[in-house]
Amino acid sequence: MKEAPSPEQSSSTPRPWISAYAPATVGNLGPGFDCLGLAVHGPGDTVRARRRDQPGVLLSKITGDGGRLPLDASNTACVAVTALLERLGLADELGVELELDKGLPLGSGLGSSGASACAALLASAAALELQVGDEALIEAARRGEAVACGSPHPDNVAPAILGGIVLITSTDPLRLISLPVPERLRVVIYTPGCEVKTADARAVLPRTVGLDAVVRQAARLALLVHALHVGDLALLGEAVVDDIVEPARAHLIPGFLDAKINALEAGALACSISGAGPTCFALADSDERATALLDILDETFTLAGVAGKGAVERVGPGARVTSPALH
Amino acid sequence: MKEAPSPEQSSSTPRPWISAYAPATVGNLGPGFDCLGLAVHGPGDTVRARRRDQPGVLLSKITGDGGRLPLDASNTACVAVTALLERLGLADELGVELELDKGLPLGSGLGSSGASACAALLASAAALELQVGDEALIEAARRGEAVACGSPHPDNVAPAILGGIVLITSTDPLRLISLPVPERLRVVIYTPGCEVKTADARAVLPRTVGLDAVVRQAARLALLVHALHVGDLALLGEAVVDDIVEPARAHLIPGFLDAKINALEAGALACSISGAGPTCFALADSDERATALLDILDETFTLAGVAGKGAVERVGPGARVTSPALH
Repeated sequence: MKEAPSPEQSSSTPRPWISAYAPATVGNLGPGFDCLGLAVHGPGDTVRARRRDQPGVLLSKITGDGGRLPLDASNTACVAVTALLERLGLADELGVELELDKGLPLGSGLGSSGASACAALLASAAALELQVGDEALIEAARRGEAVACGSPHPDNVAPAILGGIVLITSTDPLRLISLPVPERLRVVIYTPGCEVKTADARAVLPRTVGLDAVVRQAARLALLVHALHVGDLALLGEAVVDDIVEPARAHLIPGFLDAKINALEAGALACSISGAGPTCFALADSDERATALLDILDETFTLAGVAGKGAVERVGPGARVTSPALH
Repeated sequence: MKEAPSPEQSSSTPRPWISAYAPATVGNLGPGFDCLGLAVHGPGDTVRARRRDQPGVLLSKITGDGGRLPLDASNTACVAVTALLERLGLADELGVELELDKGLPLGSGLGSSGASACAALLASAAALELQVGDEALIEAARRGEAVACGSPHPDNVAPAILGGIVLITSTDPLRLISLPVPERLRVVIYTPGCEVKTADARAVLPRTVGLDAVVRQAARLALLVHALHVGDLALLGEAVVDDIVEPARAHLIPGFLDAKINALEAGALACSISGAGPTCFALADSDERATALLDILDETFTLAGVAGKGAVERVGPGARVTSPALH
C-alpha cells in the first residue's frame, strides 16, 4: 500500500524542529566513583532534531564547541541516536537531522558528551514520535559514552536523563536508584582553565586497592545515602570524602589541593573533583555560603594560573524537550 | 574523710549481683565487611557482676563454654571492663567480680566474644553505679575484641550495644549510624558443626581488590542502606551480595555454597556468611519463609556432614541490664 505524501511528510517541506536540553552532571561525588552522579539545574547542551526522509542520523551543525567536535557519525549524539534506532529495529527506516548547541565545555568533567547524547536522544525521540523509556534512553546514551570516553559508564548519562542524584547499583543489567535530594543543598561547580585528558585521568587510577581502603570507601558511600535519606547536610559533607580516586587525580589539576583546603576552611560541606576533572565541586547548605565558596574557588584557581569559571547550582531535573517550535 | 562502712559496703556482706545480657550479632551482612552489623533478638551471653572491695576485675566463674575460656585477665570480659575503668580513671579504686554464662557458641561468627564483653560492661557499670555512654562502652568492648580477635573491630560490639543494624562509618574516631529496620525482616542464622579459626578467616582475605570490584561493593552497600530506608526487602536482598570476602571464605565452611544455592532457590532474599563464619545467615520477609529456610539450611549442612543448629530471628535491641536480683 502506497500513499501520496501528505504536505507535512513531503521531503520538500520542512519538518518541525524539536529542541531538547540535557543538564551538566557531576560524577563520582566523592566516594561514588563510577556509581554516583548528580544533575545540576543550570547549564547544559541543547539539541534540535527533525525528521528526514533518508534513514540514518545526520548531524548538520554544531555551535558552541569552537569547531572541535566531529560532525560525522562518530559524534556522541549520532552514536547514541543510532544506537536507539537500532535497539528499536528502526535504523533502516527512520532518519533524523540534528543540530547541537554546546552549552557545556568539552572534556571538563561535567558530563559534556553525555549531555549531548541525552539531548539528542530526547529531541530525536520526540521528532520521530517514539515512545522510549528512560532505561532505553540511558542504554543508548551509554553507547555514546563508549565512543567519547572509552567505556559505556552510566554515571553521567543516568543522572542526565533521570535528574537528581542517581546511584548505579549494577551496570549489567543496568540498575538505577534515584536518591532523595535535600532542599537546602547547593553545588558550587568551578571549571579551571586547564585540560585533563580522560586517558590521563584513567591512567592514574590505582588498579587495585587495599582492603582497608575498600571498607572506608564503601562505608562513606553508605553514609552518603543515609545522609540524603535523613536530609542531614553535615553528615553528607562527612561522607563526601574519597581516599582512592581523588588523591590519584589531584595533581592533574593545578591549584586543586589549595582550592579544597580553602573551601573547607570557608565552610564547604565537602569539596572534590567532578568526574575526571578538571571541574571541581563544593557542597554548601545555603546560597550565601555557596556564593562565598565560588569566590574562593575563583581566587584560588586564578592564583594557580588556571582561572576559569563557575556557578552556584541546585540539583536539577533531567533531560527534557524544551520547544516544539518550528525552525 | 573516712566513714565507717555501711552494712551494704562491708566486705563481709554480699553485694547485690546485677545481671546483663548482650545479643548475638551478625557482622558484615554481605557487602558491609568490617563496617556493618546487626543484633539478633534471641540468643546472647549473660554476665552477673557485683562490686568487690579490691580494685580490679575478677572473673570467678564461667558456664556454658565447655571449659574452653580463660578465667584470667585475658578473658575478653575482663579486658573490656578493665579498659572501661582505666578510661574513667577508676582502675585503682574500683573492683568488680564477674560471672559469665555463655549463651553463644565460641568462634562461631556470631560475635560471641563481643557479647561477653558488652554484657560484662553493662553489668559492671550498673553494679558500680557508673554512668557510661554507649560510645565509651563500645570503645571499651573494642579492647576486648583486640585481645579475642586480634583487632579492635567494632562491627560486632557496636550492634551488640546499640541494637538494630549499625553502620560504622569511621573507626578512629568511632562514628556509628543506626539504620532503619524493616518490620518484616527475618534473619535465619545457622551455625554448622565445624570450626573456622579467626586467623584462617583473616588469612584468606584478599589484601588488595580490583577497582571494578571496589565500585560494585560500595554501590551494593549504598543500595543496602537505601533499601533499609525505603523498607524494600527485595531491594535489600539484591544488595546483600559480597564479591570480595564471601568467595574467599566460602571454602572454609563445608556445605556453604550448596546451602546458599538451596536457600536462594527456596526464596531467601539473600544468604551469606556471618562475620568470619562458620555461622551463615539467610534473610526472609516472613516467619513462614524463614522457618522453611531454617529447615533447608539444616538439611544441607547435615548432608555436608556438619550438622549444627539454627534459629529464626528478628533484629533486636542491644545489651541491657536484665536483673538486679540478689544472689
